[in-house]
Amino acid sequence: MSVTDELLAHNATYAESFTGPLPLPPAKGVAVVACMDARLDVYRILGLNEGEAHVIRNAGGVVTDDGIRSLAISQRLLGTTEIILIHHTDCGMVTFTDDDFKKSILDDTGLRPTWSAEAFPDADADVRQSIARITANPFIPNKDSVRGFVFDVATGKLNEVV
Amino acid sequence: MSVTDELLAHNATYAESFTGPLPLPPAKGVAVVACMDARLDVYRILGLNEGEAHVIRNAGGVVTDDGIRSLAISQRLLGTTEIILIHHTDCGMVTFTDDDFKKSILDDTGLRPTWSAEAFPDADADVRQSIARITANPFIPNKDSVRGFVFDVATGKLNEVV
Repeated sequence: MSVTDELLAHNATYAESFTGPLPLPPAKGVAVVACMDARLDVYRILGLNEGEAHVIRNAGGVVTDDGIRSLAISQRLLGTTEIILIHHTDCGMVTFTDDDFKKSILDDTGLRPTWSAEAFPDADADVRQSIARITANPFIPNKDSVRGFVFDVATGKLNEVV
Repeated sequence: MSVTDELLAHNATYAESFTGPLPLPPAKGVAVVACMDARLDVYRILGLNEGEAHVIRNAGGVVTDDGIRSLAISQRLLGTTEIILIHHTDCGMVTFTDDDFKKSILDDTGLRPTWSAEAFPDADADVRQSIARITANPFIPNKDSVRGFVFDVATGKLNEVV
């Protein structure tokens, strides 16, 4: 049995006690941008219930063009007004460089990706970079509450980056 | 008090009973790509524990270049081999078109985004499109288990797209 099949069995159990449907717009008007890291259970970390917040995640929790696309849809079509950014300690993104990663792909496939890998040496600095990308972007209308945090994978705490 | 402050208070409670840290590589070797929709608590839907799977999310759960970036990092640097795609019923992405969304941004800001909004009229068809993008992409090495689902927000069930 694949892991996917195992997780589908879990879903059958989940559906047994499921009550829905909830409304489409996030009830708390918040969008979270977090790293894809397996240790970040964003709903539990923030005490979110289903239906309360958009959750956008990618490698690093970096604000990329795709993050801007998702945030623009979140704010312009579904009414969110606050943004929470979450990077974390012990992140894989600090263990390599864009150049090395792209060279390894080139060596392996004969093709060099046209995209940036978005590796970063320092989580706090990259949170600030992601905030700066939102601040500078013309497509995100609501910027009064854009706050960034580094989740500590040893303690479970969110530490704000100022 | 902002919603962000309210969620930070939840985090303090979460940290009180937190036990960590877990290892960086996902224990189950799976990466999930899901919509950012607030009703999708991916860990609960799949019965995932912290540390088990990468979770990538954006508007639609669409495989974009940023999704490929995240999946490439997930598989090449952190050893995942299975991919689970999750779209859902009652998705905001079927309520608009790229042209209309970009025109509304142009009217509002004077600038037209260079990116696609990735709206789609049919969730099943878009799951197939996302699978096709992975299949066709040279940077994703492990494609033996790439399966796509539509989560039913009324029942909590994952229905496989074949």
